[in-house]
Amino acid sequence: MSERLRGVLAPVVTPFRRDLTPDRERFARHCRWLLGHGCDGLAVFGTNSEANSLSVGERKELLSALVAAGVPAGRLVPGTGCCALTDTVELTAHAVKLGCAGVLMLPPFYYKGVPEDGLYRSFAEVIERVGDERLRVYLYHIPPVSQVGIPIGLIGRLLDAYPKAVAGIKDSSGDWSHTRRVIEAYAARGFDVFAGSEVFLLQTLRAGGVGCITAGANVNPHGIGRVYERWRSPEAESLQASIDGVRKILQAQVSMIPALKATIAHFARDPEWRRVRPPLVELTDEQQAGLIAELTGAGFEMPGLRD
Amino acid sequence: MSERLRGVLAPVVTPFRRDLTPDRERFARHCRWLLGHGCDGLAVFGTNSEANSLSVGERKELLSALVAAGVPAGRLVPGTGCCALTDTVELTAHAVKLGCAGVLMLPPFYYKGVPEDGLYRSFAEVIERVGDERLRVYLYHIPPVSQVGIPIGLIGRLLDAYPKAVAGIKDSSGDWSHTRRVIEAYAARGFDVFAGSEVFLLQTLRAGGVGCITAGANVNPHGIGRVYERWRSPEAESLQASIDGVRKILQAQVSMIPALKATIAHFARDPEWRRVRPPLVELTDEQQAGLIAELTGAGFEMPGLRD
Repeated sequence: MSERLRGVLAPVVTPFRRDLTPDRERFARHCRWLLGHGCDGLAVFGTNSEANSLSVGERKELLSALVAAGVPAGRLVPGTGCCALTDTVELTAHAVKLGCAGVLMLPPFYYKGVPEDGLYRSFAEVIERVGDERLRVYLYHIPPVSQVGIPIGLIGRLLDAYPKAVAGIKDSSGDWSHTRRVIEAYAARGFDVFAGSEVFLLQTLRAGGVGCITAGANVNPHGIGRVYERWRSPEAESLQASIDGVRKILQAQVSMIPALKATIAHFARDPEWRRVRPPLVELTDEQQAGLIAELTGAGFEMPGLRD
Repeated sequence: MSERLRGVLAPVVTPFRRDLTPDRERFARHCRWLLGHGCDGLAVFGTNSEANSLSVGERKELLSALVAAGVPAGRLVPGTGCCALTDTVELTAHAVKLGCAGVLMLPPFYYKGVPEDGLYRSFAEVIERVGDERLRVYLYHIPPVSQVGIPIGLIGRLLDAYPKAVAGIKDSSGDWSHTRRVIEAYAARGFDVFAGSEVFLLQTLRAGGVGCITAGANVNPHGIGRVYERWRSPEAESLQASIDGVRKILQAQVSMIPALKATIAHFARDPEWRRVRPPLVELTDEQQAGLIAELTGAGFEMPGLRD
């Protein structure tokens, strides 16, 4: 666990059975495929994993099952940030005990406009209560969804107090100037900045960040992995342009998570993958057909998914 | 449970011990005081209860303890709506089993901009899974905090499908024209509309609503209860003006929940009451002194709180 994860991490989508329980087998299979096709790690239980639609117990069971199925805990950075302090502590302690490389931590996101002191106290309480020197926290900044962000000044305060535990950030602000400011402010202190979308991967690496944790890696890990591998090469720009094209198609869909699942369902020839938990809604057959036509028209593939 | 609650309900603030665990004794004591001083019911585990900062287990234990302490379940409408379907089902089933008058249900609030179909499916799944004809659901519309609201059309769809289970709404939009539209559209179908703030109480009752579920009732249940009792009397307007004045003072504070707790702490001479869970922050001594000076200057009291 002393080795920090870098590169491309997927917030793995969570498959559900007909009764909407998490499907452990399909989940483990997809995790293995991702690690074998370009992902350096797996940020299971992110926004695109519908993690916030799962209970604490469901998340713990699914994570334990994944490790038991042979996916190395050292490649895992599960999301653990909940609205309730006690839930975040429970999930974080569980992940550390399993030997996970780190945890991805949303701020408590129900109450809006809370003072920075309250956010500081939230993260500090979790770190203190977990009380394990193996803990590595990646702050999760995603104001478009959580509405509660990680102020830049808060990062510094947390680094001052917990330089070892506070390991980095996933910046899903969608605002490159923000990501750059975070890198400039904290990368020199060993704080690892991951872009929240592959469209910022090359820029992030050039500026001093360490990779990306991105929804697109669920379906395009090979493409995104190649950008990471060759980012100093002359072909970096064209590789980046190619993954931007795929992302653009996915993002233009009515909803990203159902679109990712529909893509996997199509290329794995496994319609079970389409299922989402409420409040999300599956793509219609027509929407799925349109998405697949666009992707295949652009030459997109998911090699080895059906093996 | 066939009797529907009406009138003034308090979303009871949750006291915490030094270690931030919920304080059952102080909680039960405050609940009893509220029921004895103007409240018709208690919407425990609302927004002002910091319910979203509590785990599912903490909420179940605290509710069971409250009923065990003698607070009648028939007066309780606990909040049960979480981000995760399975959590909402668990809390709702628990409340129904205890004999609660109803439940106050937030929509799943992590994912933003979800389709109405997804919200419909969320509520429908909970009602189907709980599968108990005693269930009474009060929809919780509070877009300023949850960011995910209850569209007016969704209410009609849910009433069509579950006319008995879907009992009413707490409208905390802060927008009177919205509350009026909901009353006009659905009150005739036996759908009970509660204003989300006492400032709309008289208007709500005159328009055909049934009461209010309001933070202010934590400290001013007698004043708000009097408006409800005498809303058809000539003094209704002046009673309403008086509770508006107290609300205005509370709402002008830096943060409503710490202000309510500071008010109770002062009038109960019990500083333990000030404590909040992160991400909230207590009022400073100076802020508290300013608040109390304003309240006492306006002649505000909490009679019987110290008995």
